Amino acid sequence: MSCPEVCHLPTPQSGRRARGIPLGSSPGSAYGAPPFRAPTPLRSTMKLYENPFSSAAMKVRAVIHELGLPVTSVTVDMPKGEHKSPEFLAKNPNGKVPTLEDNGFCLYESNAILCYLAAHKPESGLMPADPKGMALVQQWLQWQATTFGPSTTEVMMETVYAKMMGRTKDEAKYAAGMEKVRRDLAVLEKSLAGKEFLCGKLSLADFSLVSCLQLRALMGVDLEAFPHVKAWVARMEARESVRKSLPPM
Amino acid sequence: MSCPEVCHLPTPQSGRRARGIPLGSSPGSAYGAPPFRAPTPLRSTMKLYENPFSSAAMKVRAVIHELGLPVTSVTVDMPKGEHKSPEFLAKNPNGKVPTLEDNGFCLYESNAILCYLAAHKPESGLMPADPKGMALVQQWLQWQATTFGPSTTEVMMETVYAKMMGRTKDEAKYAAGMEKVRRDLAVLEKSLAGKEFLCGKLSLADFSLVSCLQLRALMGVDLEAFPHVKAWVARMEARESVRKSLPPM
Repeated sequence: MSCPEVCHLPTPQSGRRARGIPLGSSPGSAYGAPPFRAPTPLRSTMKLYENPFSSAAMKVRAVIHELGLPVTSVTVDMPKGEHKSPEFLAKNPNGKVPTLEDNGFCLYESNAILCYLAAHKPESGLMPADPKGMALVQQWLQWQATTFGPSTTEVMMETVYAKMMGRTKDEAKYAAGMEKVRRDLAVLEKSLAGKEFLCGKLSLADFSLVSCLQLRALMGVDLEAFPHVKAWVARMEARESVRKSLPPM
Repeated sequence: MSCPEVCHLPTPQSGRRARGIPLGSSPGSAYGAPPFRAPTPLRSTMKLYENPFSSAAMKVRAVIHELGLPVTSVTVDMPKGEHKSPEFLAKNPNGKVPTLEDNGFCLYESNAILCYLAAHKPESGLMPADPKGMALVQQWLQWQATTFGPSTTEVMMETVYAKMMGRTKDEAKYAAGMEKVRRDLAVLEKSLAGKEFLCGKLSLADFSLVSCLQLRALMGVDLEAFPHVKAWVARMEARESVRKSLPPM
């Protein structure tokens, strides 16, 4: 499971395609590499196996851009079942994306991938070194995993994904999901009062949580009743890294 | 929100009771303090608000015992709605347990609490310092949150909790939960092949995940088809810290 250099494109037989970042980059180029301008190719040891439409992929792309790390993106063709191939299951036995591979070291769960990426640039402060700061960021990454991720995914299923799959929206499931999303937005609203970012300074927590709201227009989620959340989302979406993480739509 | 010393018992007006650990300790004593033998009371700055029957509480108790940290346990009376009181919501706006309080610093999400506890004893190695080791532990803590925790909770709801609430087991929901549990056990089985612990050495990952299986007899979960998982659970349950974390039943 050794890794090719940045510009290696897997052969068609492998069934996967390396692809560029959504804005201004060529297929197979590396995140963090200036598109079309690099005089010599950046060496990347990291490959991100992903699906461009998942919020889990969005948060990882945003942090890759924020840190300027060279990572090659590989789209896994899930409708074709590539995520259930023996080759992919050897990287992630759950058969899920995103999955990161760094010179044979395989890692899954998007929030854990964020922690690994931030450890490459500790000076960024995206993961604080002190116990209280670290634990608060971990609290929000866990809250994303246990609470806000599942709630927003329920709503995504009946909007974004239903539309992609040509399926009718289940109004009861949508309403149940929206109730949970509003419950969670109230927690975020309270937690963001008097703060620019969730843990005071910009951290992985902000990237992880804002990814759940980036497709809010398609989800029918309105932030008017949550002014602190609205201002925080605007603050995050003003960052080039977050804008670049959006899927091509 | 300053914290009392170890043996402070909240007044009846507060609606909460400090309580002892399940084995051999008196109410209001601290985790990690040798029961009945401490010549002078240990000073504890940490209070754990918890519900003894949740697996989330079990993993936190196990790590507290493993590290020998002085933490005062406070049972939150959830049937009485204490978790929805303004006083408790100020500590955790989600109104959930476990929640840790350390001299005014409040932290929720059980896996984040484990990270904070381990940071008090880095020499334990329960959270490795190197990026790959750290990221793997985080991967499993996240997998517990996104995958194995929800699957085992579905089964707990139709067994342990249904019995506690005097409710009939919903066989369809139970079967659906068990299918997910078996799917996840297959992932654990593959990941534990040739290893004593999930990340090689004992880590927070083991405590977090084994907590989901500690009530397996009541849940009807059989490990015979998963020999690596069975041996790992036996290895973990041989630890005094894990045995002490079980609820009083």
